[in-house]
Amino acid sequence: MRVLLVGATGLLGTQIKRILEPQHEVITASRKGSDVSVDLSDKASIVAMFDKVGKVGAVVCVGGAAKFAPLDSLSDGDYAFSLANKLMGQVNLVRCAIGHVDEGGSVTLTSGVLAQQPMVGSAAVSIVNAGVEGFARVAALELQGKMRVNVVSPGWVAETLESMGKDPSQGIPAAEVAKVYRRTIDETITGQTLLAAKT
Amino acid sequence: MRVLLVGATGLLGTQIKRILEPQHEVITASRKGSDVSVDLSDKASIVAMFDKVGKVGAVVCVGGAAKFAPLDSLSDGDYAFSLANKLMGQVNLVRCAIGHVDEGGSVTLTSGVLAQQPMVGSAAVSIVNAGVEGFARVAALELQGKMRVNVVSPGWVAETLESMGKDPSQGIPAAEVAKVYRRTIDETITGQTLLAAKT
Repeated sequence: MRVLLVGATGLLGTQIKRILEPQHEVITASRKGSDVSVDLSDKASIVAMFDKVGKVGAVVCVGGAAKFAPLDSLSDGDYAFSLANKLMGQVNLVRCAIGHVDEGGSVTLTSGVLAQQPMVGSAAVSIVNAGVEGFARVAALELQGKMRVNVVSPGWVAETLESMGKDPSQGIPAAEVAKVYRRTIDETITGQTLLAAKT
Repeated sequence: MRVLLVGATGLLGTQIKRILEPQHEVITASRKGSDVSVDLSDKASIVAMFDKVGKVGAVVCVGGAAKFAPLDSLSDGDYAFSLANKLMGQVNLVRCAIGHVDEGGSVTLTSGVLAQQPMVGSAAVSIVNAGVEGFARVAALELQGKMRVNVVSPGWVAETLESMGKDPSQGIPAAEVAKVYRRTIDETITGQTLLAAKT
């Protein structure tokens, strides 16, 4: 199957590409350094990406940024940036994917455990993650029979913790998170948010 | 206690005003017809409202609109409108309330059961409602000791169902929903989303 992987050059994207490649033709997309370049915060760029790529069996998105900073230092611009990127970027990805994904194919979005678990600094990130999950439940319902829509909610990733100088054993390795993304393609689920956290 | 009630002229606002008035001095705010006029989608208007009202013991917000329409007819503008109003309007209300609410006082926001329960037409509303809940959890954590932040999530309201020509007995009366808002002022809870639905 042709799988469009948005955010292919990041930590999770790299692992998802590696795990999908034996079975699938992975078309990579990101701002730079991929088969197709895309800016998730720009809907026209998403439209252009689908026009270039053509029909796919699945879309996986691990792209989209949101600003992490304490409440008293998050600016109007930080909220606007976060909503335009990781939230509306992924919403628009689903909207633009309609007609470009084979029947029964899937779109997989990314949220994160901060959707439910608040943390100092996560105000904008938590809005975005919770919003993505809320949207995906509705999109899955409205697109039933046409396209599946799921979300993967990664917990703290081991490699991220390590790069922050923290104990990586408290997190889930990126390669394990990638397996959860693969489930959204291989299984027939829709409207689900799959947690990918250390067990 | 002085309570600033934003969205005072609506169905729920009217009932909340009625239930709070015996114990509290209720200052009403809405676009038109209240003590103070405010446009939630305009942060400067929120700032001006707090400057005018001064210190309060609690803020209750039942204002903020979001667009209800099927996925294939929701426009870019509909999403932008919804995010600017019910989502960022309430986020900005909390941000601007800092310093205007007495220590330990509360801000109560409004989401709705569509945050968790998808419905055809609720894509933008579900994003907004889930986002408000995600934000409030973080704001409550970061503002602990200064200000409480809670959310009331109303289910279908009986009077709304009636106005839609549906069976009102399937919903919760607005007066019952108002009692849940009162709990967020009277109790010392913070970071909670209280469901106000037909039991």
